[in-house]
Amino acid sequence: MIQASHPKSVDITAQQMIFKAELDKVETVWDRHAAMQPQCGFGETGLCCRVCWKGPCRIDPLGNGPKVGICGATADVIVARNLLRSFCVGASAHTEHARHIAHTLYELSQNNAPAYSIKDEAKLIDVAKRLKISTEDKEILDIAKEVAEVSMADFGKHHGEFAWLNAVLNPLRKEKLASLGILPHNLDSVVVNGLSRTHVGSESDPMNLLLAAARLAAADVSVMAMGTELSDVLFGTPMPSLTTANLSVLKKDAVNIALHGHNPLLCEIVCDVAATMQEEAKKLGAKEGINIVGVCCTGNEMMMRHGVPLAANYLSQELTMITGAVEAMVVDTQCIMPAVVETASHYHTQVISTMDDNKIFGATHVSFHPESAVEGAKQIVRLALEAYKRRNPDKVDIPNHVQQAMGGFSYEAITAVLKKLDNENPIKPLIDQIAGGNIQGVVLFGGCSNTKVVHDFNYVTMSRELIKRNVLVLATGCAAGALAKSGMQTSQATLDYAGDGLKAVLAALGDAAGTAGPLPPVLNMGSCVDNTRAVRLANDIAMTLGVDLDMLPVCVSAPELMSEKAQIIGTWAAVIGLPVHIGVVPHVTGSSLVTKFLTQDMEEVLGGKFIVELDPIEAANKLYGEIQKRRQKLGI
Amino acid sequence: MIQASHPKSVDITAQQMIFKAELDKVETVWDRHAAMQPQCGFGETGLCCRVCWKGPCRIDPLGNGPKVGICGATADVIVARNLLRSFCVGASAHTEHARHIAHTLYELSQNNAPAYSIKDEAKLIDVAKRLKISTEDKEILDIAKEVAEVSMADFGKHHGEFAWLNAVLNPLRKEKLASLGILPHNLDSVVVNGLSRTHVGSESDPMNLLLAAARLAAADVSVMAMGTELSDVLFGTPMPSLTTANLSVLKKDAVNIALHGHNPLLCEIVCDVAATMQEEAKKLGAKEGINIVGVCCTGNEMMMRHGVPLAANYLSQELTMITGAVEAMVVDTQCIMPAVVETASHYHTQVISTMDDNKIFGATHVSFHPESAVEGAKQIVRLALEAYKRRNPDKVDIPNHVQQAMGGFSYEAITAVLKKLDNENPIKPLIDQIAGGNIQGVVLFGGCSNTKVVHDFNYVTMSRELIKRNVLVLATGCAAGALAKSGMQTSQATLDYAGDGLKAVLAALGDAAGTAGPLPPVLNMGSCVDNTRAVRLANDIAMTLGVDLDMLPVCVSAPELMSEKAQIIGTWAAVIGLPVHIGVVPHVTGSSLVTKFLTQDMEEVLGGKFIVELDPIEAANKLYGEIQKRRQKLGI
Repeated sequence: MIQASHPKSVDITAQQMIFKAELDKVETVWDRHAAMQPQCGFGETGLCCRVCWKGPCRIDPLGNGPKVGICGATADVIVARNLLRSFCVGASAHTEHARHIAHTLYELSQNNAPAYSIKDEAKLIDVAKRLKISTEDKEILDIAKEVAEVSMADFGKHHGEFAWLNAVLNPLRKEKLASLGILPHNLDSVVVNGLSRTHVGSESDPMNLLLAAARLAAADVSVMAMGTELSDVLFGTPMPSLTTANLSVLKKDAVNIALHGHNPLLCEIVCDVAATMQEEAKKLGAKEGINIVGVCCTGNEMMMRHGVPLAANYLSQELTMITGAVEAMVVDTQCIMPAVVETASHYHTQVISTMDDNKIFGATHVSFHPESAVEGAKQIVRLALEAYKRRNPDKVDIPNHVQQAMGGFSYEAITAVLKKLDNENPIKPLIDQIAGGNIQGVVLFGGCSNTKVVHDFNYVTMSRELIKRNVLVLATGCAAGALAKSGMQTSQATLDYAGDGLKAVLAALGDAAGTAGPLPPVLNMGSCVDNTRAVRLANDIAMTLGVDLDMLPVCVSAPELMSEKAQIIGTWAAVIGLPVHIGVVPHVTGSSLVTKFLTQDMEEVLGGKFIVELDPIEAANKLYGEIQKRRQKLGI
Repeated sequence: MIQASHPKSVDITAQQMIFKAELDKVETVWDRHAAMQPQCGFGETGLCCRVCWKGPCRIDPLGNGPKVGICGATADVIVARNLLRSFCVGASAHTEHARHIAHTLYELSQNNAPAYSIKDEAKLIDVAKRLKISTEDKEILDIAKEVAEVSMADFGKHHGEFAWLNAVLNPLRKEKLASLGILPHNLDSVVVNGLSRTHVGSESDPMNLLLAAARLAAADVSVMAMGTELSDVLFGTPMPSLTTANLSVLKKDAVNIALHGHNPLLCEIVCDVAATMQEEAKKLGAKEGINIVGVCCTGNEMMMRHGVPLAANYLSQELTMITGAVEAMVVDTQCIMPAVVETASHYHTQVISTMDDNKIFGATHVSFHPESAVEGAKQIVRLALEAYKRRNPDKVDIPNHVQQAMGGFSYEAITAVLKKLDNENPIKPLIDQIAGGNIQGVVLFGGCSNTKVVHDFNYVTMSRELIKRNVLVLATGCAAGALAKSGMQTSQATLDYAGDGLKAVLAALGDAAGTAGPLPPVLNMGSCVDNTRAVRLANDIAMTLGVDLDMLPVCVSAPELMSEKAQIIGTWAAVIGLPVHIGVVPHVTGSSLVTKFLTQDMEEVLGGKFIVELDPIEAANKLYGEIQKRRQKLGI
């Protein structure tokens, strides 16, 4: 198995700060990982059951001890129930995200959200059409209201069409799911139904639990589409722009504000407000004013839409503060290590939580609401300015390895480039290049970072291996962050790593786009909620060919995943027909039935499946193999 | 600590069948409990975290090893998150139950559910009024439609009044919850919001997680009221009737069908259909025809409304089949041990699952739908008749300790008796007796059975101890089952155990009701979903006095709880202002913050709290103490 150059991270700026953390005697996530070893084997195999207070029960995966829990639940049932519960949490996180955006759009349409506006009217009209809302002779705010209402109705409707599901699914896939009886009818109650099946003494048929998981996954892809597309309406659809990534983006002579989390509602306004408060920072001696940087998917949101530099993805979030140069770590929701408060306590950093239902113990809370967004943002920036006064210059050490990265490859951005090649039928050039073999296939990288994998290593290793073989790589979330920080989102990476066919295509696309060189071999499509941008592109290809996604040479890889959101995303990718690689052993191996279904039988039923492979080179080989299998099926 | 007379169960018919199970070499829940020892201490203290795939993590409660998880989550956060997740599952189970009933009512109103009808029109009109639906000059089916629509809207509404919450909560409590910012606005999205807070890196403030749990609890009490009240509309409001309980209710010369689970939609129709098929059973040699018996809360539903005998509560469910005399174990949802299939395999019993989203691995599945309920029920009864042919008489041994029990004490039934004492102001006699001291207070017993407690022992011991001290006992769910099987729901129990004051009151009520003797000292209020019957009665008292429930000498006890439904029920009881005893150590002791909040600080904020006490005599003492404290506050 190929070895990484560093035991913890291949992000060289992270390596530097891990070293500084040791010097500063500050604990990092890697220290806590080491302290937690060995981890519980019952949990790791999914064989720990805590669904009632007769328990906890556990089944020894080696067959020593009881074969069933106190109620009689088998290993298969325990594993499947645990998995469905995790998926319910992941889907809930996406649902709350989208609900927040949809409600804000509604409030905006009612003139109750003065800080927000419709930044992309064309996108609003496009969304309305896909939701079957007529837009003729309507004011833009009225269209916004209808789009928000149709979206909000999807959360709880009992009858009628599931608007976002219809907008996102290939019609052939919708038929397939309906024929299996697993077409969801809304968002919220599908979660509630899923959870209720896992109650003690409820569903004890593991296959039925897995089908419930598939149904939930179909709801999840729909709500994620809602989150992304309505964000584009409110904040603008991303278009390619050049920025920088990794810890070097922090500035010694600036008030550094790191925005961390997932929800664009907060960061958009903080960016706007900070721009108006530059002088106040300069008065404090910060010559470069206020420097906003992104962390995790809030970082991706800002990088995609405004070219804001990205400092860190999930696993390196603490390291931003280890530089000693971060005044405020401003967080909204999801993937914020509770440890950030402890890390900040070693420096002058002010941790600021902003959402009333996502408080961080020990942080300063600024309650952020769409109605009073500007006031909230001002308060946040002021707290950062205050913190700057407490900065200890002796503790500041910012890495100096500035890495360029190009972000902004939304569906619309990619389509716009393709239109320059064929305005009538923009998807045709892409299909031609795939059919001709210059593009062998496409792999979408998504997911998190995880202490069980050397940070960023699988992303970098796999993407280089695939690009070399003329596979186009798309990326979202912490995968996009890793591949931005490692230089894979540059023209140079195309020149350095791409196979000849892919290189030619990216050069032609670069010409069409008017970039200085070829397009990068890794197209950054946004934050982890944005995976449906790639689905839309894939469905354009599939529907042009009159097939479903299970025929396309397209794969998904989450080689460093950890969160329950990533787990349900991987699941919907498989449910819509794609092979999904994961580079971390899922907590299901205690059940041969569940493991076999997810990695084998699922393919017969749904076309997609999971591939578990920890070696990144071998994983790339397997995905390339899947691509070739599908090319053969298509006869190309 | 007081010792039980048997190490496993104080139900003497269960004792007999536990012995037979050993002879028959059939494993029971107690064997599996023994095999599972020792149980995982991390899980038991709530200190096991599996919310992401960096984990599992665990914090040693003795302080050896890491103090936080890999992400930095503290013991407090891990415990609070696990608890909130469990509550979300419990609330989801209740929500699916109520949704099923509400949808059936709707379908009925549209003439799409021919097997069902409005059995209690007066109750429908009463419900409509409490939901603020005008009933004047409306056809009964139109009222049913409106009630169903208003109920269904509660699941997913974004704005506007939460109809069932308004119907069930004391207005003072609604104000209190609003002032704390924890008034829920619907049912489904409150679950989704709760879950999303527990996602990795989301909420890490344990107090905020506990407040979210309180908000969820307020939604749960609302949806439970919906489930109960709409069931009464469809199947009739229970009125007192005499029946029998424990395993002796099975008949040697009958085709025995045990109905098990929670949802009255199935059992109601099976009862009706079985009545029409008695002759078919007799033709097979079953002289007494078909004998329907209940298990768990399906049993309570049938006992309450039709006086159907109750064979078993949760922990003795397998023992029904050990008699060798059960032809069919027909199950719907919740609390059905997956082990029933294995138990049945030793005999001729046919296990039949009926709900498409609650399948039981190894069972025969008859898909049961309201539209085709009669056909489904016929199929089920026929499977039982078939199984009867396979019965092995050598394996049959039915206990012979027939125990009478009076069920049917709905809110309306109790009010009807009180009206005979004071037609104008029926709650007044009850208040007078409490004020005068003949009734010192009221304890509502609810919850499950649990192998960590000798089966039924805490219920029997505590209720006798409290009754002796003139505390009126109400019971639901497996508590009601335990107290029915143990003879505590008879006039004789009043004569044997009640203190003089309570005895006098129950005698007067018995006179008024026209029963042969005094009312039982334990009033059976129904299945576990029916706890809001007691809330309505308590609110009648409180609102007459112009106070909230936190002033009343009323307590709740779940001395043998295990399910996540019971956990959330206990929580809402505390959230609406009542002291709640639990007789099993909750999985929270790894966090002193969570433990202290639930057992102490919560009382200051909400008036209710948890009392954890494993000794039933000591528990009764503590509840009696709480009652006295509250009597003092009231000045009585």
